[in-house]
Amino acid sequence: MSAPHADRGVAALGEFEFACGQSVPNLRVAYETYGEFTGDNAVLVCHALTGSQNVSRTPSAAGRGANEDADAANGTASEDGDGKAGQARAWWDDVVGPGKAIDTTEYYVVCANVPGSCYGSSGPASERPADLDLGDDEPDHDRWGARFPPVQVEDWARAQRELLDHLGVGRLHAVVGGSVGGMNALEWAKRYPDDADHVVALAAAARLDPQSLALEAIARRAIRADEAWNGGDYYGEDRPDPDDGLAIARQIGHVMYLSKASMARKFGRRSAGRDSLSREEGGLGLPENPAATFFPYRELESYLDYNAAGFVERFDANSYLYLTRAMDEYDLAAGYGSDADALAAFEGEALLISFTGDWHFTVGQSVEVADAFRASDVPVAHHVVDSDHGHDAFLVEPESVGPPVADFLEEGVEGRSVTDAAAADDREDATDENPHAPVHSSLFGSPD
Amino acid sequence: MSAPHADRGVAALGEFEFACGQSVPNLRVAYETYGEFTGDNAVLVCHALTGSQNVSRTPSAAGRGANEDADAANGTASEDGDGKAGQARAWWDDVVGPGKAIDTTEYYVVCANVPGSCYGSSGPASERPADLDLGDDEPDHDRWGARFPPVQVEDWARAQRELLDHLGVGRLHAVVGGSVGGMNALEWAKRYPDDADHVVALAAAARLDPQSLALEAIARRAIRADEAWNGGDYYGEDRPDPDDGLAIARQIGHVMYLSKASMARKFGRRSAGRDSLSREEGGLGLPENPAATFFPYRELESYLDYNAAGFVERFDANSYLYLTRAMDEYDLAAGYGSDADALAAFEGEALLISFTGDWHFTVGQSVEVADAFRASDVPVAHHVVDSDHGHDAFLVEPESVGPPVADFLEEGVEGRSVTDAAAADDREDATDENPHAPVHSSLFGSPD
Repeated sequence: MSAPHADRGVAALGEFEFACGQSVPNLRVAYETYGEFTGDNAVLVCHALTGSQNVSRTPSAAGRGANEDADAANGTASEDGDGKAGQARAWWDDVVGPGKAIDTTEYYVVCANVPGSCYGSSGPASERPADLDLGDDEPDHDRWGARFPPVQVEDWARAQRELLDHLGVGRLHAVVGGSVGGMNALEWAKRYPDDADHVVALAAAARLDPQSLALEAIARRAIRADEAWNGGDYYGEDRPDPDDGLAIARQIGHVMYLSKASMARKFGRRSAGRDSLSREEGGLGLPENPAATFFPYRELESYLDYNAAGFVERFDANSYLYLTRAMDEYDLAAGYGSDADALAAFEGEALLISFTGDWHFTVGQSVEVADAFRASDVPVAHHVVDSDHGHDAFLVEPESVGPPVADFLEEGVEGRSVTDAAAADDREDATDENPHAPVHSSLFGSPD
Repeated sequence: MSAPHADRGVAALGEFEFACGQSVPNLRVAYETYGEFTGDNAVLVCHALTGSQNVSRTPSAAGRGANEDADAANGTASEDGDGKAGQARAWWDDVVGPGKAIDTTEYYVVCANVPGSCYGSSGPASERPADLDLGDDEPDHDRWGARFPPVQVEDWARAQRELLDHLGVGRLHAVVGGSVGGMNALEWAKRYPDDADHVVALAAAARLDPQSLALEAIARRAIRADEAWNGGDYYGEDRPDPDDGLAIARQIGHVMYLSKASMARKFGRRSAGRDSLSREEGGLGLPENPAATFFPYRELESYLDYNAAGFVERFDANSYLYLTRAMDEYDLAAGYGSDADALAAFEGEALLISFTGDWHFTVGQSVEVADAFRASDVPVAHHVVDSDHGHDAFLVEPESVGPPVADFLEEGVEGRSVTDAAAADDREDATDENPHAPVHSSLFGSPD
């Protein structure tokens, strides 16, 4: 086998009708691949909300690091892709690469930036067709803005299917994703039940719970309330971006990705020992309440501010509106009577990985998905990781995630490191006795 | 005993130096009293973040309902006090009143609007002294704005002590409060250890945890990011209020007051079957993302929007900045080595009531406070209510709250309906076996 390498590109897939009924004349999908395709070794990796197609640092065929020339592919249709940190770059490098859990010397890994995002695929921040007739709605910039069709998770799966056809990949060895990327993976099991031998959904759910829906709606409200958002028409050199609104939205999301325990451990209530940074210093530069200068600027606020300042540089506010809507609206059971019916035709095996400290996508929600697979006689394992990292655990605990993923890709649900919460406990007593069940049921009650 | 009645007023307490070192020349404290003072039957009730002095509908001496003439007292120093729903009016009417748990035929109940709030007590929205020298900082309105001194929970206790002196009340039978009002009650045990026979803190904590601190900081950011906030100078007829920012702040708070279970039960993922309301219709009137009109406006979003639209009518944005800061900065141990040391001099008995569904002020945080009282040999009971209502439980479950509060006020920790989580369980095994402990420890981990 040749040395593992990465390729990247932007596929022009022609006219694409979104599930909402609206179309774009030429959908572009930015993607990266890692490793060599042998006909039966393709693994589709689905990124999370603000992730990109750049999964790993695996060097490209030309010998350049994936990060070094990613801008060439990413920059074509977006103002972003600026090399900042976060999920824009090599967001799963500890899990995907040569010798890693998803071993690119063995598997041909494909990751596509989802439509609606801003890392090179078509979305609100990308250039709209010059001949698009907008009537009186003609803005003073050349982007789609909020005229881009509403995007749903099923559109992502359909665009990925078209991209794989374009790449010459038929049946997949596996589809793997975390968070809304896990919903994307579940959508594959539902929509293309014959096309994947394995589905792995980490920190995922069949649908968001109302608490998360509420926080997402508030985050979108913060963007819409920013006057610079301007109904989505903030593109063009003379206009400010809605950075204040996007920063707030990101910070709300960020808290959802962490847990009480991880925040307490990392930051406690400690003061940062300084004021917040100005825009010149790379901060968010929002005026403080004069009376508040008596009180400390805390480390945790500094951390959230620092992260948000980087985020607004790399992500498009309209894309944030579009992608959170796609996540919110996702319902595995849509079009079927139940989650189990939606998964009934799936021909492969499924692995769910959930994390005890995750309050955004809870262990209990993975229990429900596992039950749905089980009810449809799909071989399934629900691997529960005891973690206080919160939702981010699927990104920051490669030591917990890697072994079950690797063994599942090799040997399915019987893989050595794969455990199953249902098999480990007496299901009848799960509510009382399962050490993981109380996380969900006693604090939050039943989700139904 | 005469028929129970309510009185209200605004006490002018003269110069008041806040704990920060800054002073106001004449602190005004709006208050209400219910029942007849007999010398040893006074109960101070402390309101929560956005509450007012209007605890109960108990009619006033003049025969008017407390709600009917409350505006006369409330309107003096505030743009608010508009008769809207929420915690502005009779916020604990199910618990305080004739024949209720805190029986106003037996107790003389006093509640004061805290300094910094906007229901008649001095705060950023109240008129500043005409002769205040502001140099070049003279605004075009007559309010304090962000020039009002930073306010802390200890200032609330000190102002309440001064108000009680003004009313001729020395030693209290009890101090009772929920949420940050519970912190206020704990501050009494710390600051005036000889002045209260009983302290009741519901859904309270010795300090906020970092997750709550983060969400509060984001909420304040939303207000500060609203251009209408204008550094706190939005008073005056020609200026808009920062309603968009305050609405977002309120909605973040609102989600913290509910639980996953209560949101799932009340709203699920159901559509509201209509669009959001315009400002003319009493809604928030923020433009929707055009592409989002494809998706449903959900019942839960409608509920949050409706509540926020009412809230921005009744509450002042600067007060929200001030009071959340007071809550965030509160630390029972401040000035002492530990919570136990801070409570060591307390001469009365203490009751803590916590709720299993509360993720804003968790059961585990009340466990810590109970342990601190216990370590200082204060008679204490920690009564845990199994509830899925979230933080709001102390307001909306009078049937759970009333009996232990009533019995504690009569008989202390030995009261019939008062239970103690520590006594009910083997404390050594609490982490594993206490049915309430996993709520805190397994999902969120240890707070320290």
